[in-house]
Amino acid sequence: MAPSPHITWIAVDWGTSNLRVWGMQGGSVEVRAQSNDGMGTLSRDGFGPALQNLIADWNTPDGTPIIACGMVGSRQGWVEAPYRTVPTPPLGDSFAETTCGTNPVHIIAGLKQDSPADVMRGEETQIAGFLALNPGWDGILCLPGTHTKWAEVSAGEVISFQTYMSGEMYALLCDQSVLRHSVATNDWDAAAFETAVADALSRPEKLAAALFGIRASDLLAGISPATSRARLSGLLIGAELAAARPYWLGRQIALIGGVTQSQHYAAALAAQGVPATVADAERMTLAGLTAAYRSLKDPS
Amino acid sequence: MAPSPHITWIAVDWGTSNLRVWGMQGGSVEVRAQSNDGMGTLSRDGFGPALQNLIADWNTPDGTPIIACGMVGSRQGWVEAPYRTVPTPPLGDSFAETTCGTNPVHIIAGLKQDSPADVMRGEETQIAGFLALNPGWDGILCLPGTHTKWAEVSAGEVISFQTYMSGEMYALLCDQSVLRHSVATNDWDAAAFETAVADALSRPEKLAAALFGIRASDLLAGISPATSRARLSGLLIGAELAAARPYWLGRQIALIGGVTQSQHYAAALAAQGVPATVADAERMTLAGLTAAYRSLKDPS
Repeated sequence: MAPSPHITWIAVDWGTSNLRVWGMQGGSVEVRAQSNDGMGTLSRDGFGPALQNLIADWNTPDGTPIIACGMVGSRQGWVEAPYRTVPTPPLGDSFAETTCGTNPVHIIAGLKQDSPADVMRGEETQIAGFLALNPGWDGILCLPGTHTKWAEVSAGEVISFQTYMSGEMYALLCDQSVLRHSVATNDWDAAAFETAVADALSRPEKLAAALFGIRASDLLAGISPATSRARLSGLLIGAELAAARPYWLGRQIALIGGVTQSQHYAAALAAQGVPATVADAERMTLAGLTAAYRSLKDPS
Repeated sequence: MAPSPHITWIAVDWGTSNLRVWGMQGGSVEVRAQSNDGMGTLSRDGFGPALQNLIADWNTPDGTPIIACGMVGSRQGWVEAPYRTVPTPPLGDSFAETTCGTNPVHIIAGLKQDSPADVMRGEETQIAGFLALNPGWDGILCLPGTHTKWAEVSAGEVISFQTYMSGEMYALLCDQSVLRHSVATNDWDAAAFETAVADALSRPEKLAAALFGIRASDLLAGISPATSRARLSGLLIGAELAAARPYWLGRQIALIGGVTQSQHYAAALAAQGVPATVADAERMTLAGLTAAYRSLKDPS
């Protein structure tokens, strides 16, 4: 197969569950691939072959650089990229280095906060991408996901951040708790969601009781699955908003995440009178990896 | 095999995951057996054989009555015993009826509360047992478990109750969330538990962030698994106590549950200056089933 002359570097987002790669020319995507070879499924010597497997067909020139972010840089990953401590710009000057065949691999470090203790890996790259696309932006970034991050950004630095397990709790409660009998649907009751957000914001400490109330209401009154599922999501996001209030109250907010989850957060914030911009997660990841690639090529 | 003349009736506690049976003479246990044939594993025609299987060897006289409580009386159970509405005495006058071979089977109804919607099945029998052993007792009963119940009891009736999913959330977070990496131990740090209870009681809305803090503290500071596990439990129980404050503040409390879980609740309450009596769950179940048997034999 002939070389693909348009690919000048390779972008990699390597999380716990998934591996996604893009063949890039500058800031543009030429080709993409993905697999389920997440960090969580690999031993240390499995990373190189898993990546090689996805990009072998691309036939890129020897020495094409690879820039990677995410859990690939954790202690259980390919090469550990030690955390950098906030406040700090989202991208640093150095990377954890390895190789994949003839390709140098540069892994972006995550961020940590000493007190309260907190960590992120991957989100720093999305934040860097957002700042590359919105230079000089100050405000609050919310990155919904399994472990949602709220980050305060000012003068190009991440000042502080906080992680919430709401996304993982939602998945566990939906799929494995007694509530699974009541929420089995893909439908959505937007009004029930907003009511639940308001309920949780006003009485966040009632969460563990309100959750069982979903099951009891279903048993006693036959509440629809769409209402139950939206109420479960609304209670968890509302409780998160109650805790994150110092982050969002009176601030400029941007959401970086998947479409559906970002829309839910945006609706919850809008109901509190807080407008939020929504930015696509993949686009921010690529913009952040591109910023890292450019800093490698032309160190400032 | 000769008949077992000492068994005058059979007590059954049939939950979602387990089936436990006792051969009784009046209020005394003559023999016991158990299996994993919980309600959740059986189709409707599987209940009779599962029970028969455990008691066949006992060789009781034809017509020996069986009294059962728990999820066996739910819509997905053997025979539905419709909920009775609070306020009401924990045991009613009627049972759901079926047979197991020549044995009549009497299934105790659960309780429901219309607003806020709530349900219990099995705990009403433990409450009845506690009241049979403590006639005239007024106060708050807390029944720790997968779905912990707080019930207000007065003048022999259950006045109101509330269910918390803290136990199920603890199990899911310990076994299946990102926290599983940090809490894999059977050791326990009692001081960390008390601190976490206090933290959650003073800032219950911070729960979802405090949970991830356990993982971050482990990654950044190498907190011991015993401390992490006790902190996880303390945060969940503390958040529950914050929500249940109207139940326990200034009240007389008795705990009905397993030894370890009851001790944790008792320690959390003691740290708030609230003494609590601890009653053994199995003993209360048997006392409640005995009370039901006596009401059948000698209707008042």
